[in-house]
Amino acid sequence: MEFKVLAKDGSARYGLLKGTHGVTETPCFMPVGTLGAVKSVTWRDVKEMGYSLVLSNVYHLYLRPGLDILREAGGLHKFVNWDGLILTDSGGFQVFSLGKLMKITEDGIEFRSHIDGSKHFFSPEFVVKFEEEIGVDIGMVLDECTPYPATYEYAKHSMERTVRWALRSLRARTTDKTAIFAIVQGGVYEDLRLKCVELLSPLNFDGFAIGGLSVGEPKKDMYRITRLVAPQLPEDKPRYLMGVGKPEDILEAVSCGVDMFDCVIPTRNARNGTLFTSQGKINIKAAKYKNDFSPVDPECDCYTCRNFSRAYLRHLYVSGEINAAILNTIHNLHFYARLMEKIRESIKSGTFEEFKRAFMEKISSSQ
Amino acid sequence: MEFKVLAKDGSARYGLLKGTHGVTETPCFMPVGTLGAVKSVTWRDVKEMGYSLVLSNVYHLYLRPGLDILREAGGLHKFVNWDGLILTDSGGFQVFSLGKLMKITEDGIEFRSHIDGSKHFFSPEFVVKFEEEIGVDIGMVLDECTPYPATYEYAKHSMERTVRWALRSLRARTTDKTAIFAIVQGGVYEDLRLKCVELLSPLNFDGFAIGGLSVGEPKKDMYRITRLVAPQLPEDKPRYLMGVGKPEDILEAVSCGVDMFDCVIPTRNARNGTLFTSQGKINIKAAKYKNDFSPVDPECDCYTCRNFSRAYLRHLYVSGEINAAILNTIHNLHFYARLMEKIRESIKSGTFEEFKRAFMEKISSSQ
Ligand SMILES: [Zn+2]
Ligand SMILES: [Zn+2]
Repeated sequence: MEFKVLAKDGSARYGLLKGTHGVTETPCFMPVGTLGAVKSVTWRDVKEMGYSLVLSNVYHLYLRPGLDILREAGGLHKFVNWDGLILTDSGGFQVFSLGKLMKITEDGIEFRSHIDGSKHFFSPEFVVKFEEEIGVDIGMVLDECTPYPATYEYAKHSMERTVRWALRSLRARTTDKTAIFAIVQGGVYEDLRLKCVELLSPLNFDGFAIGGLSVGEPKKDMYRITRLVAPQLPEDKPRYLMGVGKPEDILEAVSCGVDMFDCVIPTRNARNGTLFTSQGKINIKAAKYKNDFSPVDPECDCYTCRNFSRAYLRHLYVSGEINAAILNTIHNLHFYARLMEKIRESIKSGTFEEFKRAFMEKISSSQ
Repeated sequence: MEFKVLAKDGSARYGLLKGTHGVTETPCFMPVGTLGAVKSVTWRDVKEMGYSLVLSNVYHLYLRPGLDILREAGGLHKFVNWDGLILTDSGGFQVFSLGKLMKITEDGIEFRSHIDGSKHFFSPEFVVKFEEEIGVDIGMVLDECTPYPATYEYAKHSMERTVRWALRSLRARTTDKTAIFAIVQGGVYEDLRLKCVELLSPLNFDGFAIGGLSVGEPKKDMYRITRLVAPQLPEDKPRYLMGVGKPEDILEAVSCGVDMFDCVIPTRNARNGTLFTSQGKINIKAAKYKNDFSPVDPECDCYTCRNFSRAYLRHLYVSGEINAAILNTIHNLHFYARLMEKIRESIKSGTFEEFKRAFMEKISSSQ
């Protein structure tokens, strides 16, 4: 993997990330394809919107379809027929949400499948091996995702274990075709976060992620930790803020120097009828749209906005048609793609803060 | 509306049907878009497959989004943004399946909405008016869909009422922009079917449909009635076999001189994981496909078959992803479009019976 920062505007960075299966400009948003498909849209749509990097998930792929099938298919890219970049999260976050079905030790994480209750074990070494075997471009290390709230003691132990696991992950690598990113933990405690950065930064990772945010903490804590951590991470490596987020959160994090994002919001919201527009969010269920024959967002040039009215999308939604999920997802993912494009343009032209301010004013004045 | 039979092969006919919003070759299959959308696919997909005529439904559109919104939108075509041909069924069949929520009189049908229980009334005149107002290319008359089984007496009364309603429908017409098709009823009773044809044929309808089949009767009765009725219908008007069907049923009916078909099978089956192939049907859920990396149908050139394996489609299906419905529907509708194309080609080249025999052998030898 190669990464180059090509322009800066304040702390915001414009860069190029090159992996085994292609290139993406940064800052970038990764659509979530947990099970090897971005929900409700085809790869053709994803590519047309301009995405070249998507996210998938080791925990889910390990359970279904499983390593044997992925290996026999010739890797994840061949199995799902996506020829762009893929980053896989380890699934630490998913395993943690299993609660009682999960037990963590120094060795790794023992857990029961949410599908059939069968017993499994993930070690940091296994996760790296899995990511290398299925041939993803970027694999995240297995980490202990500190929940919120967590005591200082808990967050400290959990951060320290994450660092030990990161070291084990590095030692387990066997190829440079799959880049490996470390994850900074430490909860909402500033000294723990800085300590974690200090311990991970010197290590030979291809990139660094900020994990354990967007897990229920107040937004001001998320912003505070991002502002603290992002600038401390190595300048020459990509920085990834995991699980974030809303357009305003992305803008805030870009201004702190974050390069990569992922979030289920655009796809999940689409299925719930919530659509992003240049004037703020709308919910297509609302009765007022029943005879609104204008597009979702007059500034959007996606397939949905070029062809369909709010009235028609509302009709599909209230009728329970799968088509509502399809058309809404196309719009929301297109909206995110254009947002990231505008962010990159504004960094290159040195107008990022202006763009950010104008965007925030537009969405807040209408909500 | 214009219709011309351009070639015949035995009783099978190749023709051209021209309506207000375009042209379709016949024999044709109409994808079902009950609520103004073909379930799980976009209009872009429908058009790419080569469809230029789709079916919708007065009963459903009347309840949702309702006439006011359709009128305000400038008609059904504009509301759903489909610029091809649309045929609407009256929804008599749907109203009949309401059972106790429905009461039929000489005037028309009183029924309660399956959505909110509200009371409504359809007369033959209202249905024609609705179809003209929403601007569809072809509207079906309101008929009394004789259930199966039905006594001779019941079927006779019901057929006679359908004829009286057809006459009222004709008198209610105010424009020739919306063609009106009559519907032949009479259950499985040959003399009633022939009587119905005799009464309807001389009337100035733009086309004639065979209704009340594919409602639970044995397949041999469906074939028997189709073989009896189709050849008796006016030569110069399109013949439409409602709600049929499976590929083998379509082939059989084409050989009797039927020109138009509709059925939920390709789209509904797709959502249930049943896929049509040149070797017969398969169910993608089956465990044997979990590491089958071949396409659904090696003879198919649809987006799904060009890009994805049975193993991947099975994975999406068992994971409950909407993407399974999308990709399966693209394949099944493409399969039907190609089937109809091959039927038309074979009629034009005088090889229809050969084609039919070869197709039937292929699917029966593998099942
Ligand atoms: Zn849009
Ligand atoms: Zn296919």
